[in-house]
Amino acid sequence: MLPVFGHTNPDTDAITSALVYARLLTRQGVPAQAYRLGELNFETPFVLREAGVEVPELLPKLPAGTPVALVDHNESAQSVPNLPELTVTRVVDHHKLGDLTTAQPAYLRFEPVGCTATILLGLHREARMPVERLDARLMLSAILSDTLHFRSPTTTPQDREAVAFLAPIAGVEDVGAYALAMFAAKSDLGDTPAETLLRMDYKVFPFGDPPQRWGLGVIETTNPAYVLGRQAELLAAMDRARAEEGLSGVLLSVVDILNETNLTLVLSATEEKVLREAFGVEVAGGRADLGNRISRKKQIVPALEAYFAPEA
Amino acid sequence: MLPVFGHTNPDTDAITSALVYARLLTRQGVPAQAYRLGELNFETPFVLREAGVEVPELLPKLPAGTPVALVDHNESAQSVPNLPELTVTRVVDHHKLGDLTTAQPAYLRFEPVGCTATILLGLHREARMPVERLDARLMLSAILSDTLHFRSPTTTPQDREAVAFLAPIAGVEDVGAYALAMFAAKSDLGDTPAETLLRMDYKVFPFGDPPQRWGLGVIETTNPAYVLGRQAELLAAMDRARAEEGLSGVLLSVVDILNETNLTLVLSATEEKVLREAFGVEVAGGRADLGNRISRKKQIVPALEAYFAPEA
Ligand SMILES: [Mn+2]
Ligand SMILES: [Mn+2]
Repeated sequence: MLPVFGHTNPDTDAITSALVYARLLTRQGVPAQAYRLGELNFETPFVLREAGVEVPELLPKLPAGTPVALVDHNESAQSVPNLPELTVTRVVDHHKLGDLTTAQPAYLRFEPVGCTATILLGLHREARMPVERLDARLMLSAILSDTLHFRSPTTTPQDREAVAFLAPIAGVEDVGAYALAMFAAKSDLGDTPAETLLRMDYKVFPFGDPPQRWGLGVIETTNPAYVLGRQAELLAAMDRARAEEGLSGVLLSVVDILNETNLTLVLSATEEKVLREAFGVEVAGGRADLGNRISRKKQIVPALEAYFAPEA
Repeated sequence: MLPVFGHTNPDTDAITSALVYARLLTRQGVPAQAYRLGELNFETPFVLREAGVEVPELLPKLPAGTPVALVDHNESAQSVPNLPELTVTRVVDHHKLGDLTTAQPAYLRFEPVGCTATILLGLHREARMPVERLDARLMLSAILSDTLHFRSPTTTPQDREAVAFLAPIAGVEDVGAYALAMFAAKSDLGDTPAETLLRMDYKVFPFGDPPQRWGLGVIETTNPAYVLGRQAELLAAMDRARAEEGLSGVLLSVVDILNETNLTLVLSATEEKVLREAFGVEVAGGRADLGNRISRKKQIVPALEAYFAPEA
């Protein structure tokens, strides 16, 4: 059974694309099983429950040399700790290509679209595999999640076309209402510890050469006031993360899904300087208003990469 | 115009896949132009002449940030010198993934098949683009060249299927006779300088950590006796290459296409030790008999990588 898994701190795409790709490979004669690399956020259980799918198991420690398939990520910092020892035979992803290498020719499928699920729909079509209702539900949910129902600048015409194609198969009549229900589930944070909130959608990126490691968290919510009301706790959690992971900096962006705005919590003078110089924004009350920069992948990471890039 | 190019020391696949992919992209609304990164071998002019296609121009020096598409390679050591400054937006390749990274999400299409052209045929099908006679000729030739008409262990069922599909469109009735004519053209080396023979199909690979760089040349021929008759000259050319490029070692494999054998020229005690320990073969008369190991990609490079890999 080929293990298939998405990134650590899994989002909906990381979980559902592992499920959908494992099912597709199995139908194509490559027995595969989906796993997760961490605890689910608050949106994904809603999606799985609505689709009637079990939560995938946590990936066990794999022995060196085990063949694996990656979805929705490719950088070792966002994968299993022993990724360099494993044999990556397949990758389906929509992120920039990081430090991945393979010892043998592999199957790699990267497209600059808004969601891994959009690529997976293409794989069904190329293989002339009819899309089943369950897979349609999972892919539809992932695309709505990754693109914030087309609000994110990562959205491409392929993502819109995929949603239009999948919705009837999934039996979702009102896509807007379904997306709102997903986002409400994601925003229903209750008394979740600040530590957990920080890590719900959190990735570590190396910037510059020699690389310094930054932790970049995002909380996408329809209720930003609730999250911002816990600013002090969140800053304390960010400070612990910085110390424990030996990071150069930590940013936590509170993204208002419906109004498409980003208020980013500022931990210290280091982050303040970088935000000011990389984005040209001012910091007040421990927050930087990043305006409509709601995509970490498309608007936050590239600006930080350019900022930290060595002079040519 | 998006520049599309294959590796340095281009083989038939590197040239024809650049031509075919540039034509496909252009038909899909992405104006593109094929280039080459070096002089052609003796097989490719035969293929282009038979197809009635001009030799692509040498790639000019591109300014930093220029978007480019790579075919049939991805490692910087086999590409333009300033590849890290360019913006790679597309890669179609069938080699292992090396040191490539991208600053933005890109279109990457890697499949573990025998030839880049086999992947390109798939792209035509997915896009429902009818294959034109010219493209069929170029893709057919590349697959026959890269797989040595299915003799190479890199051959996959997809390559065989592609040839069966392409031959009638290309108007090639007797595929075996066409392949033999291609291989005869490639073997018609005349008074080619030894330096040129060494570099016709020559790639530099980093092995181990810290990496040592090895130059690996292959001469595929239907007339190995002619090449082996020039052993002294070739060893002298290998010695110069080692000095000029600061290499740790240089190997030149003389592959008998029709009998599927490999006699590798041995430059010094360094290469002799590595060949003995990595392949378990003995050296006599300045040559090592590597038996039926005729694929650099599948049989030579992986063995050397395993040999030079740091202890786990
Ligand atoms: Mn994703
Ligand atoms: Mn090739």
